[in-house]
Amino acid sequence: MKNYNRKEKIFKICNKKIDAILIKNNVDPYIDNNFFYFTDLEEGIFEGCSTILYPEQISELIISELEYESSKKSKDNVNIFNNKMQYDQFILEFLSSSKNIGLNFNNILLKDYVDLQKLLPKAEFYNVSKEISDLRVIKDKNEIDRIKKACNIVDSVMEKIPNMVYKGITENQLAAEIDYSMQKNGAKKTAFNTISSFGKNTAEPHYSHGQVKLKKGYFILCDFGANFRNYNSDITRTFIFGTPNRKQLSMHETIVNAQKIAFNEIKAEVKANKIHDKVYSYIEKTEFKSLFIHSTGHSIGLNVHDIGAGFSPDCEIFLKENMVFTVEPGIYLPKFGGVRIEDDILINKDGFELLTNVSRNLIEI
Amino acid sequence: MKNYNRKEKIFKICNKKIDAILIKNNVDPYIDNNFFYFTDLEEGIFEGCSTILYPEQISELIISELEYESSKKSKDNVNIFNNKMQYDQFILEFLSSSKNIGLNFNNILLKDYVDLQKLLPKAEFYNVSKEISDLRVIKDKNEIDRIKKACNIVDSVMEKIPNMVYKGITENQLAAEIDYSMQKNGAKKTAFNTISSFGKNTAEPHYSHGQVKLKKGYFILCDFGANFRNYNSDITRTFIFGTPNRKQLSMHETIVNAQKIAFNEIKAEVKANKIHDKVYSYIEKTEFKSLFIHSTGHSIGLNVHDIGAGFSPDCEIFLKENMVFTVEPGIYLPKFGGVRIEDDILINKDGFELLTNVSRNLIEI
Repeated sequence: MKNYNRKEKIFKICNKKIDAILIKNNVDPYIDNNFFYFTDLEEGIFEGCSTILYPEQISELIISELEYESSKKSKDNVNIFNNKMQYDQFILEFLSSSKNIGLNFNNILLKDYVDLQKLLPKAEFYNVSKEISDLRVIKDKNEIDRIKKACNIVDSVMEKIPNMVYKGITENQLAAEIDYSMQKNGAKKTAFNTISSFGKNTAEPHYSHGQVKLKKGYFILCDFGANFRNYNSDITRTFIFGTPNRKQLSMHETIVNAQKIAFNEIKAEVKANKIHDKVYSYIEKTEFKSLFIHSTGHSIGLNVHDIGAGFSPDCEIFLKENMVFTVEPGIYLPKFGGVRIEDDILINKDGFELLTNVSRNLIEI
Repeated sequence: MKNYNRKEKIFKICNKKIDAILIKNNVDPYIDNNFFYFTDLEEGIFEGCSTILYPEQISELIISELEYESSKKSKDNVNIFNNKMQYDQFILEFLSSSKNIGLNFNNILLKDYVDLQKLLPKAEFYNVSKEISDLRVIKDKNEIDRIKKACNIVDSVMEKIPNMVYKGITENQLAAEIDYSMQKNGAKKTAFNTISSFGKNTAEPHYSHGQVKLKKGYFILCDFGANFRNYNSDITRTFIFGTPNRKQLSMHETIVNAQKIAFNEIKAEVKANKIHDKVYSYIEKTEFKSLFIHSTGHSIGLNVHDIGAGFSPDCEIFLKENMVFTVEPGIYLPKFGGVRIEDDILINKDGFELLTNVSRNLIEI
C-alpha cells in the first residue's frame, strides 16, 4: 500500500503527462536511493538495476541475477538480466510504447542517459527530480519511525563519548569506538565517514580522523550518523578535553546560542533560508564574524544530505509538517579549532520535535 | 611530480585534442574519485567542487569555502566559492576559452551536464571516461602501496574471525566486530557495507547482515574491505560453524578449485574475460551448474568496483602489469546457502602476486 501511494503521488504532482518513470542505478556508490524509495526493498545493492514506474500499472524491476534473492521481497514484477544486452532488451520491452519518460536528472549518470537516448531514440525524457524531491522531502510515518530509531542510536553513542576518551587516544581510535558503538546499538552501518577530530584539526569541517593524540586543552569534535533500515541520522557535539580557555568557551557559547536562534524560528510555513539568514546574521555580529562557512542544516532521510531542501541561502521552500532537518551551526578558526553542534528535528504542528536529545551544553570532558 | 604525471598522461592518451578536462563532484555519495586521483588530496569530501585540468598549465581547484582547510595541501590553484553563482563564475573564467572540454561521462550526473551546457553553450563536450579508465586501471607505486596496506588490514581481521564467532552471535554483532577490528588495524573506514551472513542468507550475494543468530551447521560468509588512504581492499571467506555436511564441503571445495583455475590463468597479456570463461566452464561441469551468477572479479583501487576492467564476460581488455583485481568465484543455492572466496591480486612480471593471504582452505570453525 505504502509503495502504491508513493507511486500514485509522483505521477499526480508531475506537470506534464508522464507515461513512465525510469530509476537507474549504476555501480556502487552511484546508486539512486529512489530505487529503494519506490520498491521499498531493504537488502541488496542493485548495481546496474532499474525500476520502471507507471501511472496505472505494477512497476517493473529489472535486476541482475546476482540480486534475485534480494528482490524476492518485492511486490513488483521481477525481470532478471545476465548481461547488458538483456538489460537493454527489458528497457525496450517496457519503455518502447512510452513517449514521455521521466528521469531523475539529479541522480542518473550522463553515461546512462546517453545509452538510453540511443536505445529509445523516439522518447522524450523529462527531468522529474523536482517532483521526486517535493515528494521525498515530506516523510511518511514509516520513514519517520526509521529516522527516529537512527537518532536514538546516535544519542546513546554521543552520551558515552565522555567515557570513551582519555589522554593519548588517537582520532582514529575514537572513530573506531564510535562506529563500533553505533553498530552495537543497532545501526546497519555508519551514515557517513565519521568525523572525530582533535585540536586544530577541528577547524577543517570535513576532516575525518587521523593519528593525532588527544591532549589536555584540545577541542574534540565528533560528527557521526547511524543508518537504520536505510534511513539516516546525523549528530555533532564539540567538547574540550580539560578546562576550556576563554576563546573556546566563547566559541561554544556562540554556537549553542546560534542553534537556539534557529530553534526559535523553525516552524511550518517559514521559508527555509530565513532560518539560515537569522543564524548567519547573529554570528556575524559576534567576535567570530565570517567564520560560519556552511549552511545551517540539511534535509535528512534515505540520503544524509537528502534531496529537496536545506537551511541554506538559496533554499526558498516553505517548511512543512513531516520534513526532517539537521540544525548545525559551526565556526572554524584556522590553526585554532572549530565548534559545531548539530541536531536532527522533525517539523510538526507545534513547531518541531527534537529527534536527538543528548546535552548540548556539556563543554568540559 | 606524481600528479603532474597523471595529468600529462591523460592528455597524451586522448585521441582528440582536448583543451581542458573538468571533474565535477555533486553531493556525497556522488563524488567522482577522479577528483582525488588528479588532486592527490586525501581529506575532505568536496561536495559540489571541481578540478579543471589543462595540458600545459597548473590545474584549477574550484572548492566551497567549507573545504578550504582541506584543500591547503594542494599544489593546484585554489579558488573558493560561497554559492552556485560564484561556482558558475569560476567555470566561465577557467573554461570560456576552451573549445573541446573533456568530461567523465561515467561519473558526472546528468543534471550537472545540463547546467554546464547552459553555462558554456559554445563548448564541445567529449567523453574521456575510457581514457581515464585506461589510465586508472594501471596502478602506480603510491597506489599499490596503499592497496597493499588495505589488504594487510583485511587479512589480519579475517584471521581473527574464527575467534570472533560463537553460538548465538548475530550477523549484526559479527559485522560490528569486523568493522571495529578493521578500524583498530588502521582502516580509515570500511570499503563498503560489510557482509556478514549466516545460514541460508549466504545464498543472497548482496545481503548485508541482520538479526539471525549463529547455529551449528550454518554457513558463515564474511565479505568486507578496508579503506586505507582512499584505497580499498575486498576479501571474502566462507566457513561452516561446526561440522560441514557433504553438500557444504562439496560447495566449498568447488569454489576453492574454481579460484585455483583463475589463478592458473591470470597473467599479463591474457584477455580478462578468458579468466571468467574458464571459471564459469568449470563450475558448469560440477553439480553446481548455473549457480555461479556473477563475474569472477573486478578491478579495485580508489573505487571498490574500480573502473576499467573485470573478470567478466563482456571485458575484452588484456591484462597488464600493475593492474589490481579481486578473484571471487561463488555459488548460491537458494534456501540452502552460498559459498564465495575472494582475494586481491596484483598482476606482475611473473604472473601475479596475491595481496591477501589468509588461508583459503579453512572450512570448519
